[in-house]
Amino acid sequence: MSILAHKNIQNDIQNSLIQSINIQNEENDFIHFFYKNVEKKSDYTREKLGGKGLSVIEMSSLGIPVPEGFVIDTNICIKYNKTGRLPENFEKNIYDSIEKLEKITHKNLDGQNNLLMLSIRSGAPMSMPGMMDTILNVGLTRKNLKIIAQDFGDRFAYNSYLRLLECYISTVLNLDYKNLFFDGLYLTECFNKFLRSEYRYQATNEEFEKLIDFVSNFIERNHYGEILHDVKKQIYHAIIAVLNSYNGNRAKAYRELNGISDDLGTAVIIQTMVFGNMNDDSCTGVLFSRDPSTGENKIFGEYIINAQGEDVVSGICTPSLINDISDAKSMINLFPRCYKELDEITKKLEKHHRDMQDIEFTVENNKLYILQSRSAKRSVDAELKCAIDFVKEGLITEQEALLMINPSSIDKMLHPVFNINKNTKSITKGLPASPGAAVGKVIFSSEKACEYAKTEKVLLVRMDTSPEDIMGMTVSQGILTARGGMTSHAAVVARGMGKPCVCGAMKINVYENKGYFEILQPNGEKIIVKEGDTLSINGATGDVYLGEIELKDSEFSENFNLIMSWADKYRRLRVRVNADTEQDCKIALKFGAEGIGLCRTEHMFFDEKRILYVRKMILSEKQSDRKNALEHIKAFQKEDFIKIFRAMNGLPVTIRLLDPPLHEFLPLTKETVEKFVQFSDFDIGYVNEKVNLLSEKNPMLGHRGCRLGISYPEIYECQIEAIFEAILYLAENEPNVKIHPEIMIPLIAWTKEAKILTKTIHKIAQYYRDGYGMKNDYLVGSMIELPRAALSAGEIAEDVDFFSFGTNDLTQTTLGISRDDSIHFLNDYIENGIFDKNDDPFVNIDPYVGELIKIACEKGRKTKENIKLGVCGEHGGSPSSIELFEKLGLNYISSSPYRIPVARLAAAQAFLRRGSV
Amino acid sequence: MSILAHKNIQNDIQNSLIQSINIQNEENDFIHFFYKNVEKKSDYTREKLGGKGLSVIEMSSLGIPVPEGFVIDTNICIKYNKTGRLPENFEKNIYDSIEKLEKITHKNLDGQNNLLMLSIRSGAPMSMPGMMDTILNVGLTRKNLKIIAQDFGDRFAYNSYLRLLECYISTVLNLDYKNLFFDGLYLTECFNKFLRSEYRYQATNEEFEKLIDFVSNFIERNHYGEILHDVKKQIYHAIIAVLNSYNGNRAKAYRELNGISDDLGTAVIIQTMVFGNMNDDSCTGVLFSRDPSTGENKIFGEYIINAQGEDVVSGICTPSLINDISDAKSMINLFPRCYKELDEITKKLEKHHRDMQDIEFTVENNKLYILQSRSAKRSVDAELKCAIDFVKEGLITEQEALLMINPSSIDKMLHPVFNINKNTKSITKGLPASPGAAVGKVIFSSEKACEYAKTEKVLLVRMDTSPEDIMGMTVSQGILTARGGMTSHAAVVARGMGKPCVCGAMKINVYENKGYFEILQPNGEKIIVKEGDTLSINGATGDVYLGEIELKDSEFSENFNLIMSWADKYRRLRVRVNADTEQDCKIALKFGAEGIGLCRTEHMFFDEKRILYVRKMILSEKQSDRKNALEHIKAFQKEDFIKIFRAMNGLPVTIRLLDPPLHEFLPLTKETVEKFVQFSDFDIGYVNEKVNLLSEKNPMLGHRGCRLGISYPEIYECQIEAIFEAILYLAENEPNVKIHPEIMIPLIAWTKEAKILTKTIHKIAQYYRDGYGMKNDYLVGSMIELPRAALSAGEIAEDVDFFSFGTNDLTQTTLGISRDDSIHFLNDYIENGIFDKNDDPFVNIDPYVGELIKIACEKGRKTKENIKLGVCGEHGGSPSSIELFEKLGLNYISSSPYRIPVARLAAAQAFLRRGSV
Repeated sequence: MSILAHKNIQNDIQNSLIQSINIQNEENDFIHFFYKNVEKKSDYTREKLGGKGLSVIEMSSLGIPVPEGFVIDTNICIKYNKTGRLPENFEKNIYDSIEKLEKITHKNLDGQNNLLMLSIRSGAPMSMPGMMDTILNVGLTRKNLKIIAQDFGDRFAYNSYLRLLECYISTVLNLDYKNLFFDGLYLTECFNKFLRSEYRYQATNEEFEKLIDFVSNFIERNHYGEILHDVKKQIYHAIIAVLNSYNGNRAKAYRELNGISDDLGTAVIIQTMVFGNMNDDSCTGVLFSRDPSTGENKIFGEYIINAQGEDVVSGICTPSLINDISDAKSMINLFPRCYKELDEITKKLEKHHRDMQDIEFTVENNKLYILQSRSAKRSVDAELKCAIDFVKEGLITEQEALLMINPSSIDKMLHPVFNINKNTKSITKGLPASPGAAVGKVIFSSEKACEYAKTEKVLLVRMDTSPEDIMGMTVSQGILTARGGMTSHAAVVARGMGKPCVCGAMKINVYENKGYFEILQPNGEKIIVKEGDTLSINGATGDVYLGEIELKDSEFSENFNLIMSWADKYRRLRVRVNADTEQDCKIALKFGAEGIGLCRTEHMFFDEKRILYVRKMILSEKQSDRKNALEHIKAFQKEDFIKIFRAMNGLPVTIRLLDPPLHEFLPLTKETVEKFVQFSDFDIGYVNEKVNLLSEKNPMLGHRGCRLGISYPEIYECQIEAIFEAILYLAENEPNVKIHPEIMIPLIAWTKEAKILTKTIHKIAQYYRDGYGMKNDYLVGSMIELPRAALSAGEIAEDVDFFSFGTNDLTQTTLGISRDDSIHFLNDYIENGIFDKNDDPFVNIDPYVGELIKIACEKGRKTKENIKLGVCGEHGGSPSSIELFEKLGLNYISSSPYRIPVARLAAAQAFLRRGSV
Repeated sequence: MSILAHKNIQNDIQNSLIQSINIQNEENDFIHFFYKNVEKKSDYTREKLGGKGLSVIEMSSLGIPVPEGFVIDTNICIKYNKTGRLPENFEKNIYDSIEKLEKITHKNLDGQNNLLMLSIRSGAPMSMPGMMDTILNVGLTRKNLKIIAQDFGDRFAYNSYLRLLECYISTVLNLDYKNLFFDGLYLTECFNKFLRSEYRYQATNEEFEKLIDFVSNFIERNHYGEILHDVKKQIYHAIIAVLNSYNGNRAKAYRELNGISDDLGTAVIIQTMVFGNMNDDSCTGVLFSRDPSTGENKIFGEYIINAQGEDVVSGICTPSLINDISDAKSMINLFPRCYKELDEITKKLEKHHRDMQDIEFTVENNKLYILQSRSAKRSVDAELKCAIDFVKEGLITEQEALLMINPSSIDKMLHPVFNINKNTKSITKGLPASPGAAVGKVIFSSEKACEYAKTEKVLLVRMDTSPEDIMGMTVSQGILTARGGMTSHAAVVARGMGKPCVCGAMKINVYENKGYFEILQPNGEKIIVKEGDTLSINGATGDVYLGEIELKDSEFSENFNLIMSWADKYRRLRVRVNADTEQDCKIALKFGAEGIGLCRTEHMFFDEKRILYVRKMILSEKQSDRKNALEHIKAFQKEDFIKIFRAMNGLPVTIRLLDPPLHEFLPLTKETVEKFVQFSDFDIGYVNEKVNLLSEKNPMLGHRGCRLGISYPEIYECQIEAIFEAILYLAENEPNVKIHPEIMIPLIAWTKEAKILTKTIHKIAQYYRDGYGMKNDYLVGSMIELPRAALSAGEIAEDVDFFSFGTNDLTQTTLGISRDDSIHFLNDYIENGIFDKNDDPFVNIDPYVGELIKIACEKGRKTKENIKLGVCGEHGGSPSSIELFEKLGLNYISSSPYRIPVARLAAAQAFLRRGSV
């Protein structure tokens, strides 16, 4: 009887034995065992056991076949990171646990009975796919190799041992073997030849022995000979390697990119090996419980027969689909019993987790093992479809579905798509690995991509990607690979980043070192694409185009609309838009804007014809010149306001009076000064002097906002008149247009500023009421964008109907950081861990800026219970900030047009989370 | 029997009648009567009745002879200012009160019995001497003129009526008579001729009649004829004129200058006239209960015989001293009984008010009347001496004495004096009207002074000053007048402003229009001084010098030292200095500094030799270059710190690490760039590019403060090493020097910044402890100068021993105002009443900046109960800010060296006031 058969029989007896083993070897408090139907303890959390560790314990507890093993929890890693030390007796505890595992599995390290072989992996609380080390086949030595060979054949034995040695010199011991030659090849090439090419079937035992000797000698020369003979040392070194890999560059880069704290640590999972590469009755694969690209409710999986470990995800071999009945090589045809079991387990896991699963499995000698199950990364389309389908299937509620969706996915959906006509021909097609359209210059290495991306848009093209390519992928518009499937590294990471990706474009041959790739055409001709050529890829179809394809706005899918309708149903916060033009308004309305939260009147000043009048207004010494220029500006503004009011018919429109310092509008170049002098007939010396005089040392804290309204009342008066005249015009000519103007005064610091300027507004309104019969109501509000305004909000509230928080400026002043200048040091701050990249205070609201907003809300409401409260800074489109704004009970948020759907979803999530606390 | 005799007899009967009158005419609620021994009601406050109104009521209640009358309280003026309207029945109420006054005084408007004549004056809660209108002789008409003439002679009657008419056309009716000619003279000149020159004794009745006709016609032509016949209309117009004068330009300018709110309003005092110009048994005068220049306990007064009203203070006539026994014209000789009574009343009033008094009196026909008594303006020397003498006299306590002194007076005392040697000869001498030394260019008009003062120091020279000169006096270094005594307008206002002033320099003849003045020398020669010539005046001696006299530091008087010793006895707050050099330290110690609160290390960088190394450090690309430059800088800094520690032996020294953005040190001109290139051997193109690269849009919010310490740790390390090496040097070589270093990190916003940088400091300290046996203790602190730091002070406190509030930057960020750029709009803000000139938030702490400081104190103490708290911004020398810092219980304040005595006094006052609340 083979070891395998023996093992299978014993499985049943095993369970009854475990209880007694537990009593004999009291479990160490940082070591947690898993085996079939193990009890899942109440303190088993993702934080403690990592995602993978929790998954194997959970699956074991559900009776799913998982190779037995134990988890070293994250506390060890956290302690190790902080102190550089492991607990006393750590090594002994590990060896004791191995002995226990020997008893559970009825296998032994010495191979006397069944040979116990282990995989040693990392498993962090937040998924970091491929970022940390995995060591397979631990436990094999030259000596016990023979036992394996006896049972499974020489080839398997040699193959497994060679993999182990490769893993130790490359990863565990981290030796430099780049320049080692063996038998006329680089050692790296030798490993690929013996392990991954067709030659692995041809190599003789002697050839294997020679190569193993060579590697063993290399290891001994580097004073690590002990791992060749001492299995326990092998295990110990592997665990340390996993712990160290948590602070490797790849892992750090991934965490930075994904906003994962460095403090979480990783668990280490020591698990009995199962062999997908044992023979042709073995295989290994990865599946998604639904289609990760479309979300279709159909298992999507790939596998490779007689292969091990990372072969599927590494993209080195192109795998087969597991359930393509038309394909003879498909798992459903070759391993029908295992496939059926896999299908049932998949459904069980999806139901258990109430989410789409990403499952790794191995079949060893026709017996199925599940190695891992986790929440699957998916395309944005799939994310929406899954959530909706789960609701339809009764698995979750609408509210839960909303909470499942990452608001930033919604953001990605709104990006433009290619404007293709029938003449647009693709040069080749790969797998549609991550949807979206990308255009960029072809670059073949991550380093170059990082360099070039500073000045232009790049597209990363690789044979296949590895974790080292993370940074290059981050800076690229999209990724194109020649090898690897839908579950390859490139595909998974690109989907996670929301970057367009085309994978496995088989007709491509990439010559990275030579700086080009070629595509074999059906007619035998070759297309050559060189570094720097422009390429367009469509990650939703897999199409690759030469040159730049024009982009157009994407259409909203039905699923998108449904999710948005649920979001609208479950949110309290109104969502407005920051829009300055009629065009902005139209986009915004399409995206669901419920009004304008910020119309920056000055954005209309830069029009070529208008700017001359604006400059004249600013530079006029004589009041008559100034008034004349203002009359022109008023006419422009009135026209703009008519268009905006018309577009926003029935919705509130918040118009901010002039905010930026006047010198921002002034001519600075010789040409613009000359043009202005020609237009205005002003003296050129005077103009230059005045431009110089108006410049400021710190314009951000200078003569701007309502300070202009105090110094030059005529400017604000002109703008206010334009608003009321636009209203009058529409009332007379287009009475169906309903207007709700909200006039907003920027940069208030003192109550008296608000008092003086609101008085001006009311006086002008009264003038149009008395003189022209204006009937329209209007609101007057103050921006709260200075700490003093927030602190004195109780006084300011006396004079205004609403507050609008200008979180950009409030952040700049509260933190004392000019956004424009922060590039000089923000990177140093992220590197020093002063704040996280994802906590950039200009993206997500700083907690102390939040505190000031809270103070202002409380004080404002104390004075005027029903004062309207809104946000019009960039943070109005940031989900984590929206969470705060919901908590504070603001009336509305306002964001840029493209962020509106994100804001709608985030507002719903914030409301639902608030309710559930 | 004359009217006067009749009146005197009736005085006694009068009092018994008053009760019944009160019952008959119930007093209106805004009208308040005064007469001998009147009851002073509990709601009679300065706010309600004005200073003058309260004074006449108070004096009346003390039995002091005050002409009877009534006060219209400030509520009328406040209402009138707000609404532009007077209460219904106002006019009728006034006329009723006049009737009542007729009964009290037994005089009548129609003159049938005794003629009732009135003075109508303003009287604001805060003294505004000469700023508002006074109308005398109200009640006289061409018709009842004859009654007066009958009793007092034609001359007096005509003189009085002409004064009335002058007052009505110039002030009450505000008619333009500048260009009116009469009898070959401008009308203005006519008035002076008939009223103020020797001609007044010669003019015939006919001449008077003709002039009166002329003026009456002018009034009738302007449709104000009614005031010539209708006495009630006369009164009504005069009251309105007083109310309007509250918002006149003079009054507004005075309030702005003195930080008096516009909202207080003025009372109007309607009082029976008494006549100092009745005959030679009459006189009018002003006195100070002590010498206003020296504080000597001796009445100092001036008077004029047979004169009225403003003649004394206007400076038009030069008066006689009231108590110079050697002068036959002195009051003590000519009016011995009245002088005795005046002397007694003066002592009574000083004792009653427990303060030095400024008293106006009139003798009418040998009967003394007191018109007003108020707290006297005095020189700084007098202020100190009075306070000390009052304590010696048992009138007040030391604490009360401290509270009497205006801290800004102390400031003025510290200003430099002339460095005179025996060869320095004055060109003339006037009265020492306001002490201090002033040097400036001679200017003859207020307008020109304002214009020239923008670019240079000016000295205002006038025949005499009037309220129109206020702005000119404000901008001048000092004032010199040819006419007017120690109580003239120029003298009183200059003392109030603390400006040096020489008055009544009789040998001077000023030709303002011709642009020069001349001085008659004893030898008959004339010295001509032209506009623009430089002059020096000594307000303490009255000396005037040609050219610029060198200045030297003033010596502290005994009185100053005594007051300071009391201040030190009654204060809790420690007072430190902001000092960057050994020289600063020496001055500061002389002024009583108890340590350094802020040593700006970078101020030592600008030394010619050092700056090159600083530039090299900043511009170095290579670390070796940077390190080399830093070694030089370290050597400089060590040397500086040794000197400072030595100077401050035994006192705490707070050293702030580098704060300003690096570009502030960079060469900007062609010359400095070239000099640097020569020194450094750097490429000029590289230098220019780098200088450009380092520039910032908003440097105030840019890469500065601890942000430099994070980005360039080597810079902070160099500074910290210099500190500890200086300590080591002194410990070895001068062990008697006791050092208490407090290392301060600027611009903290995040806790982690403090964490990282305090760790660096402790690490370096440990290095010097372990390696060099350093034994000295030290503190590490954080500046709190950003709103975020204040709000997160609870976290920051975990890592530091002290907080130092940087109120300059905290004000800039809380208010969103760059101090450098605020000049563009702060004037508009003061004009619009958004804040008062004296509430400049960069001088006196803004209340909401104060709120942030309070929050920081509370949070800091919650984390670390005994955390040391100090202030090192400019506000550390501002009395009103010190009041807040005392309330918050800070440990110390820190100010510039010259502000230290002010801070010591203000700290004592704040402590005493806090105790008395």
